[in-house]
Amino acid sequence: VLVAILLFDRVTALDAVGPYEVLSRVPGVDLRFVANEARIHRTDSGMLGLVADHTIDAVTAPDVVVVPGGPGTRALMGDEVIAGWIRDAHATSTWTASVCTGSLLLGAAGILQGVRASTHWSARERLARTGAVVSTSRVTVDGKVITAAGVSAGIDMGLTLVGLLCGPAQAEEIQLVLEYDPQPPYGAGSLESAPAEVVARVMARP
Amino acid sequence: VLVAILLFDRVTALDAVGPYEVLSRVPGVDLRFVANEARIHRTDSGMLGLVADHTIDAVTAPDVVVVPGGPGTRALMGDEVIAGWIRDAHATSTWTASVCTGSLLLGAAGILQGVRASTHWSARERLARTGAVVSTSRVTVDGKVITAAGVSAGIDMGLTLVGLLCGPAQAEEIQLVLEYDPQPPYGAGSLESAPAEVVARVMARP
Repeated sequence: VLVAILLFDRVTALDAVGPYEVLSRVPGVDLRFVANEARIHRTDSGMLGLVADHTIDAVTAPDVVVVPGGPGTRALMGDEVIAGWIRDAHATSTWTASVCTGSLLLGAAGILQGVRASTHWSARERLARTGAVVSTSRVTVDGKVITAAGVSAGIDMGLTLVGLLCGPAQAEEIQLVLEYDPQPPYGAGSLESAPAEVVARVMARP
Repeated sequence: VLVAILLFDRVTALDAVGPYEVLSRVPGVDLRFVANEARIHRTDSGMLGLVADHTIDAVTAPDVVVVPGGPGTRALMGDEVIAGWIRDAHATSTWTASVCTGSLLLGAAGILQGVRASTHWSARERLARTGAVVSTSRVTVDGKVITAAGVSAGIDMGLTLVGLLCGPAQAEEIQLVLEYDPQPPYGAGSLESAPAEVVARVMARP
């Protein structure tokens, strides 16, 4: 299985590293971080650099494409090189995946017309404008497109994807190795479950 | 708040990136990835490079120290430079934290004598040999030492830490921004909850 995970400047690290941590543990996987340029890309905070070892030109027919999100997606919305790569990869992929606002890049590539898709809760309206049918599920599978909600949802998406690729036994083994038995210490993880004042404070941020 | 997250060759990426993604969102935080050498460090799979911008010498009195785990901890168990840095940082830190087998490095530095601490389920015996009192909790707080279970538990630890540092309101805001409302598609996330045959298959791995 050849997996390509896209990187770019101002990517949200966990969007990429969540699925990576799961998918890199599939036996025999060839997982490559790709970008317009093969170099270090700084994450959204600027505090971490992630290395893309390969250019997108060098990885043209992955079985699985994963597009993470982050503030850096805004600069890529009109990038025809990235859009063309996503379109071409999607034409031959087994699964085309996104995390968070990475779905906006799938949409900008024109592959979400009439497709049900998830995104970060703050980007639902923008996703709808790409022609997607917005899903509020944490992970949405529609045909061969699998999309996750915000940031941390990429871990759930990754495990779902391993189940689809290799069957549940492999996904369960990886879940145990990653000790993925989440116990959030607070209850503010979704737009629907967070206390109203928490939502209001986050919405009021610049 | 000055936060130092240790990197090394063969680190498990999510161990470091989980707490990073949470802590980097604390207002005014100065978060630095540090290592013996300021360079790219390859993760355990070899498929990703993470950049340490700073040497440990350059970040000597962080308020928060985070030590991730991974197969690379084995090579560091006798590393007196790393152990000395952890000991010195712990002497002045507000919080000293680890994820997964990062707790073994805290133990090797001698700071877990009689301290309750968590680690990856597969490393509980090794942790006990450092003098720690092994906890099977996902996140354990004992004095100013906060330790997490395996890999993905670093996200829960990060949010707990933000609550301790800044109060619950800030932690809830970050949880919502990260849309951390986990919904694992399988139920094999802990040694205690995983089906026996899943545990047996993972234990039988080389």
